[in-house]
Amino acid sequence: MSIFEKRRKKLMEIMEQKGICAAVFTPSTDYRYLTGSARQPAQRITALILTQDHQRLLLPGFEAGNEKALAEELELVPYSDLEDAAQLTAGLLPTKGCAAAGREMRAGFLLALLKLTGGLHWCDADTLMTPVRRRKDPEEIRIIEEAQHMAEQALWKLIQEPLAGRTERETASKLMELRLAEGFDAVGAGIVASGPNTALPHHINGDRIITRGDILMFDIGGTYKGYHADLTRTFAVGAVPDGFSEIYSIVLKAHMAGKEAAQAGIPAAQADQKAREVIENAGYGPFFTHRLGHGIGLDVHEEPFITSTSQLPLETGNVFSCEPGIYLPGRFGVRIEDLLVMEETGARSLNRLSKELLVI
Amino acid sequence: MSIFEKRRKKLMEIMEQKGICAAVFTPSTDYRYLTGSARQPAQRITALILTQDHQRLLLPGFEAGNEKALAEELELVPYSDLEDAAQLTAGLLPTKGCAAAGREMRAGFLLALLKLTGGLHWCDADTLMTPVRRRKDPEEIRIIEEAQHMAEQALWKLIQEPLAGRTERETASKLMELRLAEGFDAVGAGIVASGPNTALPHHINGDRIITRGDILMFDIGGTYKGYHADLTRTFAVGAVPDGFSEIYSIVLKAHMAGKEAAQAGIPAAQADQKAREVIENAGYGPFFTHRLGHGIGLDVHEEPFITSTSQLPLETGNVFSCEPGIYLPGRFGVRIEDLLVMEETGARSLNRLSKELLVI
Repeated sequence: MSIFEKRRKKLMEIMEQKGICAAVFTPSTDYRYLTGSARQPAQRITALILTQDHQRLLLPGFEAGNEKALAEELELVPYSDLEDAAQLTAGLLPTKGCAAAGREMRAGFLLALLKLTGGLHWCDADTLMTPVRRRKDPEEIRIIEEAQHMAEQALWKLIQEPLAGRTERETASKLMELRLAEGFDAVGAGIVASGPNTALPHHINGDRIITRGDILMFDIGGTYKGYHADLTRTFAVGAVPDGFSEIYSIVLKAHMAGKEAAQAGIPAAQADQKAREVIENAGYGPFFTHRLGHGIGLDVHEEPFITSTSQLPLETGNVFSCEPGIYLPGRFGVRIEDLLVMEETGARSLNRLSKELLVI
Repeated sequence: MSIFEKRRKKLMEIMEQKGICAAVFTPSTDYRYLTGSARQPAQRITALILTQDHQRLLLPGFEAGNEKALAEELELVPYSDLEDAAQLTAGLLPTKGCAAAGREMRAGFLLALLKLTGGLHWCDADTLMTPVRRRKDPEEIRIIEEAQHMAEQALWKLIQEPLAGRTERETASKLMELRLAEGFDAVGAGIVASGPNTALPHHINGDRIITRGDILMFDIGGTYKGYHADLTRTFAVGAVPDGFSEIYSIVLKAHMAGKEAAQAGIPAAQADQKAREVIENAGYGPFFTHRLGHGIGLDVHEEPFITSTSQLPLETGNVFSCEPGIYLPGRFGVRIEDLLVMEETGARSLNRLSKELLVI
């Protein structure tokens, strides 16, 4: 039995426990988790349709030849360009009961299904998928760790080069190349923020030229075998500006406090609170404007979310970011982000790159 | 008034005509059409919320600083990591009437909104957006034409190199590089199908080595300023295999017949039927397994769809593909795809690359 068959079997068990008679997933991270297929959402609908007695894959007929592997595990239902995918899907569902729609399904398709299945009550499949997906198995953790090392390796290579004189966008573009060369399947531009732009937590890269004495923040990821990396480091370029070392060391202390506090069985909020306390006690509370972290896996942001109010207990196998920050408008910002995996004995970092203040 | 303000104004007029009191768009092509923003879907919700009296943008608070341009046109509603975006959205909507959800909104968010807005009846915003979006303005047509020329230029450069001996995947990767160098913002791998793989209309690139005497099919696109290119050409490598020229000339004749038949005011089906007739009359009807074409713009597949049954009349400003094909399992396939723009006097091709049978 393939890992994907096992996952679908587990999902069907949960559906039965919860009294859900059907689940429909269009291409998405849930779809990939359940089939192994990297199929992307498209105008021509593909849908994994799970009911008590059938595991079906509705797909464009002329693409059926691409799915020989899945055809061994699922009943393929090909359709033509003259047929309506929503009508076909509705016809394969029970006429009453509770059905779950994959969280990433598009509203257009869902609204069509709602209209065609008056007897069904629809709910968000997230409640079924999330408790399973948030506990990673050893192979998933291995892939995320490898991806994280690849991102670090690319950043490491970049900072061996002189960066002063280049624009943020040029630097981001170089960092994309370096990440693709490390083996990522896909990368985005990520964040390359320089000088006062580092005070915007999600700065959009622009044409500002990196200059000696700047703070330089990199927040990068990428997908590898479907899984995400996520890494933030903040450097000083050539020289450390006044007041920066103090802020940096507060953020680093907060990072370590958050990591320390993360324990299997305790609510996620405790990790956020312990990190936030460090920053609040130093008088910078209002400048830490976001949560401590987020789970990561097939989605770059997924459960568990590490916020100051989440009562969700951390579990072994959770993989999440620890990324406190302080952002001083007009001056600079600092964020330090590792990925952590929750183990029996505490949180283990998946990073190897130093978190000390580096002058590059 | 910016082009985006004008588009929103027009949408509000259509909403009023149709008795729709609110529309909600999360990052998507509709969102880009209405705001100019290339923002991507993310776990932290961003939502453009249009009601009779307000045009609001709900967004993560720490990203508000990134949206200075939009802040001049829209009321920004920032929220924190501790707030629930669905609840905030629901609170900004009327309590009864008809509301429209952007077609690409994720099911998870829509289902949350449905639960929170019991008095509202939800419909698919596609019925509002599509009639507007499918008629491109001159600037949109100019961008698509430029993108199409860039894709052609990349393919032209590629076929100057000897391709025999390389794998499909290597060739696809080279063609991605060439397209990025032409100026595309983003490209996918596209389709590089060789030999018998050309008989699968949507072949997934593999490790097959391109060999003299192969048929080689390229189906490539890319996004430029948000708009898509889409181009298919089928070549012979070094020598023309038996029976190929005949099939090629049937497909080319079908292509020209489809283009000729496309006229403003006539149903889209007529173009498909005229092209299909050529292939049917030659005895290959069952091997043309898909529609003649699809509209293209911010989405790679959008209205108008050129199927054998669509009664939607073509309109000036429509931009759509014309891409008949014949696929002979185990042997080879041929597809020839241009993009056409519907003008008063007929369909004009946005391509410049020859559609004659080329031996490369």
